Amino acid sequence: MNKKELEKLLVDVKNGETGIDEGIKMLSELPYKDLGYATIDNHREIRNGYPEVIYCAGKTVDQVRGIAEYMITRNNNILATRATKEMYEALLEVCPQAKYNELGRVITVQVRPVEETESYIAIVAAGTSDLPVVEEAYETARILGNKVEKVTDVGVAGIHRLMARMDFIRNAKVIVVVAGMEGALASVVGGLVDKPVIAVPTSVGYGASFGGLSALLTMLNSCASGISVVNIDNGFGAAYNASIINKL
Amino acid sequence: MNKKELEKLLVDVKNGETGIDEGIKMLSELPYKDLGYATIDNHREIRNGYPEVIYCAGKTVDQVRGIAEYMITRNNNILATRATKEMYEALLEVCPQAKYNELGRVITVQVRPVEETESYIAIVAAGTSDLPVVEEAYETARILGNKVEKVTDVGVAGIHRLMARMDFIRNAKVIVVVAGMEGALASVVGGLVDKPVIAVPTSVGYGASFGGLSALLTMLNSCASGISVVNIDNGFGAAYNASIINKL
Amino acid sequence: MNKKELEKLLVDVKNGETGIDEGIKMLSELPYKDLGYATIDNHREIRNGYPEVIYCAGKTVDQVRGIAEYMITRNNNILATRATKEMYEALLEVCPQAKYNELGRVITVQVRPVEETESYIAIVAAGTSDLPVVEEAYETARILGNKVEKVTDVGVAGIHRLMARMDFIRNAKVIVVVAGMEGALASVVGGLVDKPVIAVPTSVGYGASFGGLSALLTMLNSCASGISVVNIDNGFGAAYNASIINKL
Amino acid sequence: MNKKELEKLLVDVKNGETGIDEGIKMLSELPYKDLGYATIDNHREIRNGYPEVIYCAGKTVDQVRGIAEYMITRNNNILATRATKEMYEALLEVCPQAKYNELGRVITVQVRPVEETESYIAIVAAGTSDLPVVEEAYETARILGNKVEKVTDVGVAGIHRLMARMDFIRNAKVIVVVAGMEGALASVVGGLVDKPVIAVPTSVGYGASFGGLSALLTMLNSCASGISVVNIDNGFGAAYNASIINKL
Amino acid sequence: MNKKELEKLLVDVKNGETGIDEGIKMLSELPYKDLGYATIDNHREIRNGYPEVIYCAGKTVDQVRGIAEYMITRNNNILATRATKEMYEALLEVCPQAKYNELGRVITVQVRPVEETESYIAIVAAGTSDLPVVEEAYETARILGNKVEKVTDVGVAGIHRLMARMDFIRNAKVIVVVAGMEGALASVVGGLVDKPVIAVPTSVGYGASFGGLSALLTMLNSCASGISVVNIDNGFGAAYNASIINKL
Amino acid sequence: MNKKELEKLLVDVKNGETGIDEGIKMLSELPYKDLGYATIDNHREIRNGYPEVIYCAGKTVDQVRGIAEYMITRNNNILATRATKEMYEALLEVCPQAKYNELGRVITVQVRPVEETESYIAIVAAGTSDLPVVEEAYETARILGNKVEKVTDVGVAGIHRLMARMDFIRNAKVIVVVAGMEGALASVVGGLVDKPVIAVPTSVGYGASFGGLSALLTMLNSCASGISVVNIDNGFGAAYNASIINKL
Amino acid sequence: MNKKELEKLLVDVKNGETGIDEGIKMLSELPYKDLGYATIDNHREIRNGYPEVIYCAGKTVDQVRGIAEYMITRNNNILATRATKEMYEALLEVCPQAKYNELGRVITVQVRPVEETESYIAIVAAGTSDLPVVEEAYETARILGNKVEKVTDVGVAGIHRLMARMDFIRNAKVIVVVAGMEGALASVVGGLVDKPVIAVPTSVGYGASFGGLSALLTMLNSCASGISVVNIDNGFGAAYNASIINKL
Amino acid sequence: MNKKELEKLLVDVKNGETGIDEGIKMLSELPYKDLGYATIDNHREIRNGYPEVIYCAGKTVDQVRGIAEYMITRNNNILATRATKEMYEALLEVCPQAKYNELGRVITVQVRPVEETESYIAIVAAGTSDLPVVEEAYETARILGNKVEKVTDVGVAGIHRLMARMDFIRNAKVIVVVAGMEGALASVVGGLVDKPVIAVPTSVGYGASFGGLSALLTMLNSCASGISVVNIDNGFGAAYNASIINKL
Repeated sequence: MNKKELEKLLVDVKNGETGIDEGIKMLSELPYKDLGYATIDNHREIRNGYPEVIYCAGKTVDQVRGIAEYMITRNNNILATRATKEMYEALLEVCPQAKYNELGRVITVQVRPVEETESYIAIVAAGTSDLPVVEEAYETARILGNKVEKVTDVGVAGIHRLMARMDFIRNAKVIVVVAGMEGALASVVGGLVDKPVIAVPTSVGYGASFGGLSALLTMLNSCASGISVVNIDNGFGAAYNASIINKL
Repeated sequence: MNKKELEKLLVDVKNGETGIDEGIKMLSELPYKDLGYATIDNHREIRNGYPEVIYCAGKTVDQVRGIAEYMITRNNNILATRATKEMYEALLEVCPQAKYNELGRVITVQVRPVEETESYIAIVAAGTSDLPVVEEAYETARILGNKVEKVTDVGVAGIHRLMARMDFIRNAKVIVVVAGMEGALASVVGGLVDKPVIAVPTSVGYGASFGGLSALLTMLNSCASGISVVNIDNGFGAAYNASIINKL
Repeated sequence: MNKKELEKLLVDVKNGETGIDEGIKMLSELPYKDLGYATIDNHREIRNGYPEVIYCAGKTVDQVRGIAEYMITRNNNILATRATKEMYEALLEVCPQAKYNELGRVITVQVRPVEETESYIAIVAAGTSDLPVVEEAYETARILGNKVEKVTDVGVAGIHRLMARMDFIRNAKVIVVVAGMEGALASVVGGLVDKPVIAVPTSVGYGASFGGLSALLTMLNSCASGISVVNIDNGFGAAYNASIINKL
Repeated sequence: MNKKELEKLLVDVKNGETGIDEGIKMLSELPYKDLGYATIDNHREIRNGYPEVIYCAGKTVDQVRGIAEYMITRNNNILATRATKEMYEALLEVCPQAKYNELGRVITVQVRPVEETESYIAIVAAGTSDLPVVEEAYETARILGNKVEKVTDVGVAGIHRLMARMDFIRNAKVIVVVAGMEGALASVVGGLVDKPVIAVPTSVGYGASFGGLSALLTMLNSCASGISVVNIDNGFGAAYNASIINKL
Repeated sequence: MNKKELEKLLVDVKNGETGIDEGIKMLSELPYKDLGYATIDNHREIRNGYPEVIYCAGKTVDQVRGIAEYMITRNNNILATRATKEMYEALLEVCPQAKYNELGRVITVQVRPVEETESYIAIVAAGTSDLPVVEEAYETARILGNKVEKVTDVGVAGIHRLMARMDFIRNAKVIVVVAGMEGALASVVGGLVDKPVIAVPTSVGYGASFGGLSALLTMLNSCASGISVVNIDNGFGAAYNASIINKL
Repeated sequence: MNKKELEKLLVDVKNGETGIDEGIKMLSELPYKDLGYATIDNHREIRNGYPEVIYCAGKTVDQVRGIAEYMITRNNNILATRATKEMYEALLEVCPQAKYNELGRVITVQVRPVEETESYIAIVAAGTSDLPVVEEAYETARILGNKVEKVTDVGVAGIHRLMARMDFIRNAKVIVVVAGMEGALASVVGGLVDKPVIAVPTSVGYGASFGGLSALLTMLNSCASGISVVNIDNGFGAAYNASIINKL
Repeated sequence: MNKKELEKLLVDVKNGETGIDEGIKMLSELPYKDLGYATIDNHREIRNGYPEVIYCAGKTVDQVRGIAEYMITRNNNILATRATKEMYEALLEVCPQAKYNELGRVITVQVRPVEETESYIAIVAAGTSDLPVVEEAYETARILGNKVEKVTDVGVAGIHRLMARMDFIRNAKVIVVVAGMEGALASVVGGLVDKPVIAVPTSVGYGASFGGLSALLTMLNSCASGISVVNIDNGFGAAYNASIINKL
Repeated sequence: MNKKELEKLLVDVKNGETGIDEGIKMLSELPYKDLGYATIDNHREIRNGYPEVIYCAGKTVDQVRGIAEYMITRNNNILATRATKEMYEALLEVCPQAKYNELGRVITVQVRPVEETESYIAIVAAGTSDLPVVEEAYETARILGNKVEKVTDVGVAGIHRLMARMDFIRNAKVIVVVAGMEGALASVVGGLVDKPVIAVPTSVGYGASFGGLSALLTMLNSCASGISVVNIDNGFGAAYNASIINKL
């Protein structure tokens, strides 16, 4: 029930077309639906250029294509994460302008222009094995309308390479740090900047990295103060977060 | 080596008072110290109203008092977290304007005025047992110069209490969500707002809450998109983060 | 906003005392509060004999007494779990009819009669060390108006003692099984009855019981089909659950 | 030894055809077998419409077909969970009326009519990836003779969609909540109803969901009171439980 | 129902004093009770010199004294593990012949002679900090009637001290190995003997020993073939096990 | 250095053919090698009918065949565990009398007769999915010369089936209990017998069984006293252990 | 900025070709880059015979070949760990002198001679399944210029085989111990030598070895004093460490 | 059996005072004891200035004093770790030259001079809360005869403070890095030096530091190559290791 419908209901009550009792019944339940749709509008839909997001893991190729087909009818941009190449090829049939970032396993469909921010998000990554997560974050931030800069292969084992890029990193409005193995990069960057740092642990590593647990714990326990953390390999979430902050 | 000292060194080199070789030696190592101090200035010290922070856990009463005594000579505000009442009483001797938030275990010493932001940080908490973490976050955000509003006892088991406060929460610039036990509050709030949400799991709970692990995992796995997470019970870190964002 | 207030609002709109716009504003937000309170009424309060519940862990003696004092003014029964003896003594001052089950750490205040069910809940426990959880469950189920029977010290290491009591257990409408250490009792009972079994792992044990984790995993993995599980040591939750089922 | 055989034994003793000593020996051991079979009759077999259940995981196609072939001779309904398509095709050869729910990996064979309950079980699920567990629960509840209603895609990140369905959910006699990732749905539903809620954590998620551990802990630690939990992805167990309660 | 009572029942049936129907009812349930008591007799009681065992952890001083007082009336030996000195002193009042092994936290009451085995159990321990568990095992094995030999302070970091004692260890009928920290002693001993080895991990250690988890995992993963494991610090269980084997 | 060589050395010293100093050097190191070989003889080799054991996991088909070829030259029986069918077929080429237990993944080669014990080992298993571990244990115990009896499908969810077989189980000299999921069978059996019980947790299960961890913890925490535990799925180890005890 | 460039800058400042302000700007940032490159030279590159290292896990065949092609232009030796045979074959095309250790999954390319140390590193391993890690360590230590000796199949279950090799092990300058399952070998070796011992836990094992966690904890908790530990299966890291020590 | 006794035995054999058979028997067992003692001499005792080490945790004051009293009679230096002040005071009675490092909980007794190395061990620590571990390492390294330098409060959150000290750290022969919380310091230092780095995780932290687990995993997963790790808070082990390397 949007504002218009709510107005109509009250007018009907005033005019006696809807009885008091009936009005009570409708109002005590319906507002959830209305506000619900309204919230979905604000959050998940895209009057303002936000893409519709499909999390493809655990979905079939047919399901992904079906969801995308419906979305296209609403003339919105689409972001599909954790997408296989097969999904991309299925999407191409219904949506020729779809693009695929193979490393980041991300499909983007841009049917409406996105206004780019002036300030930029810096995505800083430790090693080349972290690139899939970097690319997921990059594509997410891009289609959400952000200027994005990548600074990669600056792991803490070669701290000077990082130092050489710090000025550039410091000038970002918000920083996403992507690192696996011991994940120490977040602490070092966090200690050198006064900007919000969103840390993404990756599952890169072996043995006692326990699928990213090591990097996750490192980042949660960081002695640097401006760091918050998202789930392991969650490049999408970090970029979504960074985008909200970048647009404040 | 600050800018002044660096300038002096170059002048000395130009004048021949310092030889080329000697200059090389000094410059190839010293800048670390200088930039180091400069970084500390920007990050940890407080020309701009930032307090000096003492993390009291694992320190003795004497150590805490000693550090504070030194800080007072620099005429800075002080924030001491995880502080016992005994530490507070020791501080009072050297620093009569110290105040103690017993619930939040936080000592604050404000010797210089702090300019308050216009936008506010909302601290939203699930239950009354989460209040110590709320208070730590509150005091941190306050002395960092933020307007802060607390919305407490709105756990998801009584979702309507939360709903009734959502407009107020939505108007904050950044939201800190504090919850223990199952920690579901972060997901619900995250789904209703389009502002950055910093989630703080607390160690409130028993049995399979495993000292806050349950709430931590809940928050990391949130299906709502704009959420990032800090360490268990880390009210300070959440507020520090929120303050950076609130001042962007 | 309860039904009466909602009715008044609609009447006011009809009469023109409240404008359409104002009505829209009130209705789009207030219903949460009203339904919220209504939900709390239905769920947590006690027109129908439900007690008000105070979870005392992490609360001070003063807080517990304060909450109880307020509750007493509403003329409701009270159930306070995880309560210390000190809390009980503080309650006695403001509420002389309070009773304390020391083993179960439960305070009950019965100011209104509770109608007892005809069907009974059986609380079956493995060992004497599980009795505190048994007592918490017992007091909870009692003040919620259930007939309750305890069958204790029937751990699986002496299966025949259990067998001798099975007829009695089978005649319950719902069964709560309380066990620590390896927690196998739930599976054995679950295999012998066709009633809902709510299993409560306890933290009784040492070494590789890891604070109740062993019993918890046992119960979750039970090969018997009618078993569901609550948190470690959560006698309250099991009894609350059992009470809902017992009253269906 | 069924009742008939027991009667015959006592008659034989009375008549002297079986000596006292021999009777002692037979009775001190045999009853286990008899009561054992009797228990299996009551619990696992199906005079009253219960299906025979085959848990197919870890069984070969031949084993599953063999067990089913035997069951069919007893003219009972069959429920086979965690079944592959290959198993279904093998069953079809010996049992043409078998049906396969591919999403739920469930085979059902209904040879005898099942009387449907009037009250219904509501299966409420957070996301589309949870559907396999929903379908396992659905088929289980159906063949056990329950009316079942599914309410899907109502995750807490879009709380209003859930709110719009709450009346329908509240009218169920028992509610099964299926959710992965952070699993917060159980707490929210549990706070809005006064019916037994059986929560099923799913292994949906990645990274720090640790194969469903995150959702499991969330549900065990729920601050809502009427919730109990079954094993990760255990749609069968939840529905079996719900069926027992629905038929009370 | 013991044999006598069973005989009486059959006689009554034969004589017509008990009807067939009534006999069926009694027999289909009562045997559990009878065999149950009989099993308890065989297992937990002590016609054959077995002590009655009290596990004192989680019991009050009064409970322990109460149980012991009852036991004494049955003229049996008593073994109380995890007993505090306070419990011992309380026991002394009702049972002057009680003895206390302070290191092992074990009370023994020997009122009837115990026949000692000829073969011996060797208890082999790594370090002096493992002695409490050694003593618990020692007292248990002793009162169960075993000859026992202790070989202590032979940790693998000084392998030659162990080697020097191997002949003695090899001559035992069964070997209990007690070790904390890395728990490697079990593997080394297991590789040098052809006797059953029962390994007891202890909670001795710090940091990554995680309360005995390290030693537990070591022992479970031993590459030596004749080793089985009991719970962390479970000296009683190891000795009970060893006693059963020693008496085969 | 075997006894002969040792004798020769001493004779040489006596005769002066080996100098005192040289003797010291040889003796202070060489005995390790000699006793080492001797121990291997006693433990791992098979003068007394013990098979040579090959743990095939992590070995290539060629490695397994190579080791077996060598062993055959020593005219010993062979037991190869965790063996694939491909390994078996490769072995057949060099060793036509090899037999393969496909369910248990065990190859046995019996070239010398094994004397069978009179007493028997009972292998008791909960469900049909546990059979691979049962078979590994069975083949191991058989080729080690034990009489073995299997009692399967007696899980605790149908306790009466177990009860009906208890007399048979009680008459074994040592009992191996194999169970996955919640692993409660070990406790129930342990409470009913006075024989050594070796419990084998299996990885059968899903979700919160965590690959056998649940059953492992259950067995370690058993409240029954005569139980010891081996590694998850370690049928070989349990049978090896049982064999040592069975032959005492 | 290397020394030459730094000298040029200071000369320019002295000559006035570079202004004081400009010099400050360059110096306050550039040194990071220069020292950075210099550090990389010292650490990762190979003026002194160190190979360039490629960690192949998570890289594509094309990426590995691309990196190697670039490295070859710098005329350095190459060490590629965790390399597949496919990667090796791709490398062969651009680098015919490449060699592949299939067991250790290591590619080495030696284009420049490496001077071998006189002292040797002993790599001591428990079982044949640990050989892949042994080989990774061996190839790493070799191309780093170390004399290396392997002592394999000396697990603690057959302690005498180890004893027979101890003199040889003791004479190494540094010892790498490789062991899976219970990992006890490190403690035994550590107790017998006075040389640095670097312990490598391997993922060899099953069940409660939890992918190497068991061996890792064992080694971290070793009661022998001279042991330090690297990540599970990290043969490269152990050998790199050992090489640094061997060349001190 | 030391060399003298061994020589005597061989002389006796030569002279016929000891028969060949008797010699065989003595030699086949006794060498263990002898070599055992010899090994202890080399490893744990101190002809060469090594102290005797007492690990006090889990020992009583009396036990510690007793062990020390015995050691003093052998005229050796003593190192007692994890010692309480009460233990120190007890030691003072029997050993007036004892000294106590309260922060490090270490007692040292130096009765014989220790020759100091020329090269030094650098102990580098992240924060002030890590100092107890630093002091344990410091005292250990000192009494083992090493020159030691401490570099403290150089955590990665303020990387420039560390950079300013790097030259000093690089000149050490071996480096001990002590850090809690996220433990990232080890990776950063490891990337900047070409010396062996021994990393000590500490239990400093809260919440998701899980008693030092976070720092431990960080260090094990370090992407820097020359790092090995000891147990959490094991300052003694790190220093012992460093001492062996420093003296190579």
